[in-house]
Amino acid sequence: MDKLRRTERIAAIMNILINNPNKIFTLSYFCEKFNTAKSTASEDIEIIKKSMQRFRLGQLETVTGAAGGVRYRHAMHIDDAYEFIKGLCDNLSSETRVLTGGFLYLSDILSMPYITKRMGIIIADMFYGDNPDFVLTMETKGIPVALMTAEALNVPLVIARHSSKVYEGPTVNINYVSGSSGRIETMTLPRRAVKAGQKALIVDDFLKAGGTAKGMLDLMDEFSVSVVGKAFVMSTEEPKQKQISGEISLMTLNNSQSLAGKLIVKPAKWLNK
Amino acid sequence: MDKLRRTERIAAIMNILINNPNKIFTLSYFCEKFNTAKSTASEDIEIIKKSMQRFRLGQLETVTGAAGGVRYRHAMHIDDAYEFIKGLCDNLSSETRVLTGGFLYLSDILSMPYITKRMGIIIADMFYGDNPDFVLTMETKGIPVALMTAEALNVPLVIARHSSKVYEGPTVNINYVSGSSGRIETMTLPRRAVKAGQKALIVDDFLKAGGTAKGMLDLMDEFSVSVVGKAFVMSTEEPKQKQISGEISLMTLNNSQSLAGKLIVKPAKWLNK
Repeated sequence: MDKLRRTERIAAIMNILINNPNKIFTLSYFCEKFNTAKSTASEDIEIIKKSMQRFRLGQLETVTGAAGGVRYRHAMHIDDAYEFIKGLCDNLSSETRVLTGGFLYLSDILSMPYITKRMGIIIADMFYGDNPDFVLTMETKGIPVALMTAEALNVPLVIARHSSKVYEGPTVNINYVSGSSGRIETMTLPRRAVKAGQKALIVDDFLKAGGTAKGMLDLMDEFSVSVVGKAFVMSTEEPKQKQISGEISLMTLNNSQSLAGKLIVKPAKWLNK
Repeated sequence: MDKLRRTERIAAIMNILINNPNKIFTLSYFCEKFNTAKSTASEDIEIIKKSMQRFRLGQLETVTGAAGGVRYRHAMHIDDAYEFIKGLCDNLSSETRVLTGGFLYLSDILSMPYITKRMGIIIADMFYGDNPDFVLTMETKGIPVALMTAEALNVPLVIARHSSKVYEGPTVNINYVSGSSGRIETMTLPRRAVKAGQKALIVDDFLKAGGTAKGMLDLMDEFSVSVVGKAFVMSTEEPKQKQISGEISLMTLNNSQSLAGKLIVKPAKWLNK
């Protein structure tokens, strides 16, 4: 092997960091992998940190203490996040997206990995400080965004389901009233999926009346799990009174004239700084 | 802004490439972004390519022609892929995972983003040459792996569901016989989700008799979509005769003594080169 140049080493370190978001690597890890002195590895890290700051390409944090090291976190500058969400809103406000019954078609947006990934990065960025142990979502449409959030946070994704399956073992079930339909639905989670005392971050695609979200809160209560946040891709302006509070969303949907076939999607206010 | 060093530029280019897998970037893009000459950007790319080869950190491909440029593809060396899957198999072969009825608990594995991401990378790597237009899965358990595969391929993830929803517009529905239960089930997909003439890659978590997979094939037929591949996280040894053929899987499950509570999981043979 010819002598390893700093440039090649930096490319490799950057690669490893990004492919392992929110995971702590010790300086020794890089020293051993690249056979360098600590001072050299430390300089490499400084260069990477500087580059990320300069080009708004995420954050490299130094974690001190016995289990210390460096950790890469995806992050989007608030201006970039606003521009990204604004672009989606313009697309979503197209008349061709209004379905019979005044519903908005957004499955195609939620099917694009590069879109859900960026949504997940924006959501994760708000909850790093709360150290959630897992992300919780209810099947099905919210799974992609919830998974991308979980990936950015480097925690498991736990999926609540409508019915229990034989291959999931014993489950805990609750009933909840779906706010939109008024119907009673079941929500189920395997007993082994989470542990008492953990912290959950709820992520879902759509918040209207909040019945499903309330169901997830109740379900976490059954498991003695605390909920550190509730994040949604989109929340509706009507009804104003939701069954939950303290949620954040990326976009708001003006649905006051939905039955007339008019839906307007806007970036959530907190993004427009 | 002080003078941009090559090291910082390389860190930034690596970052952009990895966060946009399987997307072509022209050399001009980097020249403009970093205000450098083509020869300089070209040298940067060569260094990154060399680093990735040396440390088995994915592939950087040069695409020639009018729409040419460079494109990053996640990739795992076959030895690394085998080691990774082997580790999972050892974990999955634990007796504590056998549920009543002889089922295997693997929801926790499929809930870890860093695991499903690597599974998706291994699967995507086998189908780059087939240029699928989208990844298709059936809700719910296969979604994480299917999404990670779609992300690596940079194509949409399309999710077939058990019942149609008002917010998805007109749908195409088919009935299929679930091979395991023998029951007739429904599979549904919005009309707008895919277009005739496209190519699909089917990704799911589990292949037993193949009823669900056969259903997905039939569904694609209804949309005049061709299927370029069928990939599964795990396939069972019994029944030997599946309803589909030509599939690949990452692991095989010896379930001949499942009712006696014995399940053995092994890496698929093709991984052990």
